Amino acid sequence: MRAVIFLLLSSFALTAARQRYEANWESLDKRPLPTWFDKGKIGIFLHWGVFSVPSFASEWFWNCWNSGNPSCVNFIKNNYRPNWTYADFARDFTAEFYNATEWAKLFEDAGASYVVFVSKHHEGFCNWPSNVSFNWNSMAVGPRKDLVGELANAIRKHTKIHFGVYHSMFEWYNPLYMRDKANGFRTQDFVNRKALPELYELVKTYKPDVIWSDGEWEASSQYWKSPEFIAWLYNDSPVRDTVVVNDRWGNETRCKHGGFLDCTDAYNPGTLQKRKWENSFPIDSSSWGYRRTMTIDQIHSIESMLTLLARTISCGGNLLINVGPTKSGRIIPVFEERLRQFGSWMKVNGEAVYETFPWKHQNDSVNPDLWYVARKLDGKTNVYAFVLKWPAEGQLIMADLKGSPRLKLSMLGYTGKKPFTWKSRPQGGVIAALPPLSPSEIPCNWAWVLKLENTLE
Amino acid sequence: MRAVIFLLLSSFALTAARQRYEANWESLDKRPLPTWFDKGKIGIFLHWGVFSVPSFASEWFWNCWNSGNPSCVNFIKNNYRPNWTYADFARDFTAEFYNATEWAKLFEDAGASYVVFVSKHHEGFCNWPSNVSFNWNSMAVGPRKDLVGELANAIRKHTKIHFGVYHSMFEWYNPLYMRDKANGFRTQDFVNRKALPELYELVKTYKPDVIWSDGEWEASSQYWKSPEFIAWLYNDSPVRDTVVVNDRWGNETRCKHGGFLDCTDAYNPGTLQKRKWENSFPIDSSSWGYRRTMTIDQIHSIESMLTLLARTISCGGNLLINVGPTKSGRIIPVFEERLRQFGSWMKVNGEAVYETFPWKHQNDSVNPDLWYVARKLDGKTNVYAFVLKWPAEGQLIMADLKGSPRLKLSMLGYTGKKPFTWKSRPQGGVIAALPPLSPSEIPCNWAWVLKLENTLE
Amino acid sequence: MRAVIFLLLSSFALTAARQRYEANWESLDKRPLPTWFDKGKIGIFLHWGVFSVPSFASEWFWNCWNSGNPSCVNFIKNNYRPNWTYADFARDFTAEFYNATEWAKLFEDAGASYVVFVSKHHEGFCNWPSNVSFNWNSMAVGPRKDLVGELANAIRKHTKIHFGVYHSMFEWYNPLYMRDKANGFRTQDFVNRKALPELYELVKTYKPDVIWSDGEWEASSQYWKSPEFIAWLYNDSPVRDTVVVNDRWGNETRCKHGGFLDCTDAYNPGTLQKRKWENSFPIDSSSWGYRRTMTIDQIHSIESMLTLLARTISCGGNLLINVGPTKSGRIIPVFEERLRQFGSWMKVNGEAVYETFPWKHQNDSVNPDLWYVARKLDGKTNVYAFVLKWPAEGQLIMADLKGSPRLKLSMLGYTGKKPFTWKSRPQGGVIAALPPLSPSEIPCNWAWVLKLENTLE
Amino acid sequence: MRAVIFLLLSSFALTAARQRYEANWESLDKRPLPTWFDKGKIGIFLHWGVFSVPSFASEWFWNCWNSGNPSCVNFIKNNYRPNWTYADFARDFTAEFYNATEWAKLFEDAGASYVVFVSKHHEGFCNWPSNVSFNWNSMAVGPRKDLVGELANAIRKHTKIHFGVYHSMFEWYNPLYMRDKANGFRTQDFVNRKALPELYELVKTYKPDVIWSDGEWEASSQYWKSPEFIAWLYNDSPVRDTVVVNDRWGNETRCKHGGFLDCTDAYNPGTLQKRKWENSFPIDSSSWGYRRTMTIDQIHSIESMLTLLARTISCGGNLLINVGPTKSGRIIPVFEERLRQFGSWMKVNGEAVYETFPWKHQNDSVNPDLWYVARKLDGKTNVYAFVLKWPAEGQLIMADLKGSPRLKLSMLGYTGKKPFTWKSRPQGGVIAALPPLSPSEIPCNWAWVLKLENTLE
Repeated sequence: MRAVIFLLLSSFALTAARQRYEANWESLDKRPLPTWFDKGKIGIFLHWGVFSVPSFASEWFWNCWNSGNPSCVNFIKNNYRPNWTYADFARDFTAEFYNATEWAKLFEDAGASYVVFVSKHHEGFCNWPSNVSFNWNSMAVGPRKDLVGELANAIRKHTKIHFGVYHSMFEWYNPLYMRDKANGFRTQDFVNRKALPELYELVKTYKPDVIWSDGEWEASSQYWKSPEFIAWLYNDSPVRDTVVVNDRWGNETRCKHGGFLDCTDAYNPGTLQKRKWENSFPIDSSSWGYRRTMTIDQIHSIESMLTLLARTISCGGNLLINVGPTKSGRIIPVFEERLRQFGSWMKVNGEAVYETFPWKHQNDSVNPDLWYVARKLDGKTNVYAFVLKWPAEGQLIMADLKGSPRLKLSMLGYTGKKPFTWKSRPQGGVIAALPPLSPSEIPCNWAWVLKLENTLE
Repeated sequence: MRAVIFLLLSSFALTAARQRYEANWESLDKRPLPTWFDKGKIGIFLHWGVFSVPSFASEWFWNCWNSGNPSCVNFIKNNYRPNWTYADFARDFTAEFYNATEWAKLFEDAGASYVVFVSKHHEGFCNWPSNVSFNWNSMAVGPRKDLVGELANAIRKHTKIHFGVYHSMFEWYNPLYMRDKANGFRTQDFVNRKALPELYELVKTYKPDVIWSDGEWEASSQYWKSPEFIAWLYNDSPVRDTVVVNDRWGNETRCKHGGFLDCTDAYNPGTLQKRKWENSFPIDSSSWGYRRTMTIDQIHSIESMLTLLARTISCGGNLLINVGPTKSGRIIPVFEERLRQFGSWMKVNGEAVYETFPWKHQNDSVNPDLWYVARKLDGKTNVYAFVLKWPAEGQLIMADLKGSPRLKLSMLGYTGKKPFTWKSRPQGGVIAALPPLSPSEIPCNWAWVLKLENTLE
Repeated sequence: MRAVIFLLLSSFALTAARQRYEANWESLDKRPLPTWFDKGKIGIFLHWGVFSVPSFASEWFWNCWNSGNPSCVNFIKNNYRPNWTYADFARDFTAEFYNATEWAKLFEDAGASYVVFVSKHHEGFCNWPSNVSFNWNSMAVGPRKDLVGELANAIRKHTKIHFGVYHSMFEWYNPLYMRDKANGFRTQDFVNRKALPELYELVKTYKPDVIWSDGEWEASSQYWKSPEFIAWLYNDSPVRDTVVVNDRWGNETRCKHGGFLDCTDAYNPGTLQKRKWENSFPIDSSSWGYRRTMTIDQIHSIESMLTLLARTISCGGNLLINVGPTKSGRIIPVFEERLRQFGSWMKVNGEAVYETFPWKHQNDSVNPDLWYVARKLDGKTNVYAFVLKWPAEGQLIMADLKGSPRLKLSMLGYTGKKPFTWKSRPQGGVIAALPPLSPSEIPCNWAWVLKLENTLE
Repeated sequence: MRAVIFLLLSSFALTAARQRYEANWESLDKRPLPTWFDKGKIGIFLHWGVFSVPSFASEWFWNCWNSGNPSCVNFIKNNYRPNWTYADFARDFTAEFYNATEWAKLFEDAGASYVVFVSKHHEGFCNWPSNVSFNWNSMAVGPRKDLVGELANAIRKHTKIHFGVYHSMFEWYNPLYMRDKANGFRTQDFVNRKALPELYELVKTYKPDVIWSDGEWEASSQYWKSPEFIAWLYNDSPVRDTVVVNDRWGNETRCKHGGFLDCTDAYNPGTLQKRKWENSFPIDSSSWGYRRTMTIDQIHSIESMLTLLARTISCGGNLLINVGPTKSGRIIPVFEERLRQFGSWMKVNGEAVYETFPWKHQNDSVNPDLWYVARKLDGKTNVYAFVLKWPAEGQLIMADLKGSPRLKLSMLGYTGKKPFTWKSRPQGGVIAALPPLSPSEIPCNWAWVLKLENTLE
């Protein structure tokens, strides 16, 4: 009997304790971001859809073509029958090699803490059997598969990665949307019938821990009814305890309201931000969706990716690394390679990434190839310096580091005996002396992390 | 000045005089059917859609397949890749040979007074660029054409035929509909977002004179909100003066409410009906949509079509003759031939069809191959007897015709000198003596019409 | 022992008795035509191939396109991707509904005595798995079926029809042929590697009773080595006793050498010919191959077909009626209808067709709608008059018929009692009096045959 | 006048001087290999064809499927319609992104001296408009392009690379070949009509400097008439002065006769060979043709490629690096990356590759990660040691190198001041001391080359 009462009470207590949020930004912005997100640091972004069929220009292909861009117009003219339509592509979105389990394992090996899967892009094609996208979804045309569901399941079954979804609010050419727009967004048919029902469907069905909203910029959050949705998400949804959302919820919200801030694509300010933010970027620097014509010079090198990482986490951001699978469901080798290179580097240097937080300095004020983060470990706070370029003669200037007597330098992953010494720099800071490490000694390639213990700050 | 006042007044009078109808069947059923419909007698029905691509089984192919019918299941299994979907067919709906002008002229030559074009069948595919069928319409996938609009324009430009549309209320596999259905039709999302918006769109855009509703049978007219729609159609729509509707507006309305009655497909009761009705039938007796495997024994002969005509108009019905165009937009030769045979017959015998009305007798009570209609012409009422089988020895029993002294018999189209005599039949009625007409004398083939002047009734 | 000797002797006798032909026209032309061909009178011609996929213009589509004909050029331009090739069509030649048994039965119902199936047309695509047409035959691309073999088997299994093949000597765009041609036909690579091997393959594999050669006109029979092939065919092939060939074996042979004469397509001279000839014509008057855009006015009516029949057999010809199946393997309804109409007419009037021979007169010298043939039946020779137009007042002029006292007239199929009388015509010949036959009495439609017994000649 | 006489004389002299070869191996094997080939060392191999459409399993896909391999059988079963044929794939070989100029430049950047382009693989599909492959070539179906010609032209226009072709003698399923084979290769129809005409066509049209024969193994060179062809090639062909051929000319010739030896695929004996040989290998270790399912672990790393290079040239071989373009004509990024990595490494170390020859030692007898080559430069012969693994502590054992007093060590590309010293190794040879080179000092990644001057041998 007592147990029952206790349970009732504790349940009551829980409910009582739970903060409820109101459907306005003032209230919603007060919700603390679930900590897993900031700690996790690394996410994988996946752009997949009907645009993966032409796989030309970018995932904005339809818009590119429809707006008369000669490149896209000529691509169609030269390769397809007259009167070809964008929807005609859907049948060739076959996904025959889609293996969500393989993907999940690859993302884990890459060191990812979360995945953001495009459930629907601006083309409006739903990668799940949506109730509000009749015959324009991946179960009804093309793959005949629940692409979202298969990945959600595989990730949960095989990894500890958090599963999340990208969702575009607007759809370029959905007549309902175009009509609302023509009405100055005084009507909300598209929101009521399409955008919001999809969001509820997605949350209830797949329980994503990230809602990565996009395509919001033409209308206010009032039009999109975003605050109502987020309030439900925070208060009553099945993921209310774990879910994080970004900031693309209306043309007045970016970089201001929501959970973490995405601000712009590939946002990477290089300075410390007040709120949690994210740098999402595609490995193919020219497109989020798969492009058949990409060349290697357009693809981020692993060095470039590690530079992005250092700069991002140093300033408080997360890094969301995008790859665009092919229409057949493959992550092409060069993307796989980058992810595995990234993961192998993280195996050596993950200590300086996960669970870290910005230090008082970010980019070294003298050495542009040096970025700092901090982390609490075993009760004390260490600083980590990301060395993006091995200094000439091994003389590494760390102008923002005060040389305390107890300052200790080491390189993550280095187990040899060569000493990492330092001396004060006359103009301020310290100069570390990196010993020359030959290829047989060096703990990793591309970038290196110095662990700085007993710093003064 | 006076003229202006007169115009104003008459306009006022017209408005004042116009009966307004309420959104209930009692009121709606009171509206008199615009007379063109009854007078016109002959319509052409066109079933065209994505089902014209598999062109197998019938226009119900999707349902046939989805419900596990072995014939359809095997057709897919034997001819398409695994994971093929119904929507995958849409791309091959090319309509490259669609020539609405040619169609319009053919229908006119066939003697049609109206056309009923399938704007959307149970598959949900809109043959016009609907605002509520994103990427599942003929402008967005497949033909890239406004199929409804092209025909409406061609018919109005080249003929005097009335243009009408068929519209299916339900859509087998539209998730919105399936949800309403699962909810016992207590929700009306599908009606509000899809079925009704389409109907308003169709009427406002194409101004059809016929709304031929279908797919209504699973729910009541209250669910479908049909009375509201029809009240608007009768009171305020741009076609309020000319439009006719059928009776398929809810599971309680067939053969009861609406404009004219369709009751069942190929309805043909053989007895006089109280209200105006219609016999719609496909020339391919097994399918409304084009089937590639049809054989000639499944296709109505012209004799069979004329039998349907006689029986139908004799009993007060209209005849709606269906053909299913191919995916490329062709009306195949055998259909064209039937329509032209029908038209050539009508050129001789149209006097006995257009503007006729049922006589007191329909099918002769003794001679099953004889049907009567009546028509007012030049101030007097004639009776016409459709002779479907030339009698042995030319002795034609007309048991229901009273032999008045002034009774005069002639054969439509016959300009020769052989006499058409008659004598009273002992058991009642008359026996006409048809002279033997050799192929060089006979005015038409397949069936013949006797004109009976000065009948007693 | 004796039996063996006997067998050897009789085999020797058979060989000895057999006339052997030399590989020159003088010798080959001496071979008597197997009698089944002249007696059979009616054949069915089938044009089926990759051209059935575009099914536009005609079976000459490739040539039409390649030679820059705007209609064909625009058809491709408007409906296919740039860089489309003719060979790209082959994949869509699916033949999924091909049912050779149904075809065989239909041809039998149509009254046919033989079938001529296009094994390969000028496009070079072999409708059988040829050894000399790698990946350009119906087993290797498209249908994955032996189209020739399936029909040969079905015809032999289900009917008494003789199976034959059409074969095009040249191939428009085969590089081997083009090179021989460029060499002034002084090289014979194409003949040695392609044309002849195919012919031997066809004969050995399918044992056709007709070799209907075509595509010969650019080179001499010496180039084609036709005499050698035919000599083998007549002397040593498995069909040496039954096979017939036509006259298209070189640019000097048409209307001169070979078995029966085809002279031109749809050859129909209207006068008696010295040698057996054939009138091959397509029901679709504009094309031998299936065309999707055909209209009913381009299709022979049954009346027209019977006119062709009368004129043809009257002058000693056979009638080879062509239909073009669709790429899916269907004989479309209008073709089926014509064949069945023809067959139903033949059921009544076959007596005047099979086994007949030309009479001394062919077309009546006064009545253009009258044609004569003769036939021996039960020991006496009857004349049959094909009445293509029922004469006004029933007065049928037969100017070439001498009115003998015993001359007896009757109409095939008529079992009634009305008399068929005649009187001498002052200017010569007779005038028959056809009784007026109403639709209930007349034995058939479209054309009628008078049987003339006891004629003087 | 004198000039003319001189020219005439020298032309005569040239002709007179030219050695003529007989059509037998004894004679043909005497021809000296044109020196460009041995000097050039690096070639690019390209496997492109209809197999690039399924791009599954390997370029042997047709055989894999046809021989019942479950993986290939299921791939077809799961993704294509029943009755799908291999030739049905050809239409999708679109090559729309094929840019031969870009390819040529890429190959030059990769450091290649020659290119070997698959003109026809075992499937028999000709990548040029062959006269003997009607409708089974890249101009007639699929690309509608002369793939061979475009690359030959681009390479000659933009680079100094030698252009060569791969050509498969046999074709798995060509009926002519299958018949010759069934005849125990006593007939030669396939050779006379297909294989040889193609080879002559290729040489005359594209003037390749390499004929890389393959698919020879089921029959003798007598069947293939290879000696006759090669004699013509060496004596009279337009490329007689520059052409090189490999050794796959009959089932008795591999590793024995011809120009250079390919012996087996990826031949890499690891010991010095008597004749010039070649190591051809695919970057995708599992397939020469593009495979969509390749994963990064199946792809050679650049380290692995450099290991192959060292081992190959050390033993007198050339390295032929294969990539398989996609059906659309792209060299995918990971292949481009490997080629560019290779090229960038060659920019530093090319001195040790081009124009080198084997030294007296190849693989160091103690250090397995060390390979030697030699080269004459500025009048003296240097030895180069390929260091594939940076030694622990920088102590590099070179057991086969005798320490002479004047021996001088340096590292290609290193311009710093750290000394490269050495000392004699007690057990023989020397031990070099590589200074620790940090990432900012090291001249290249992945492998390093020591230049050894003034060696005793």
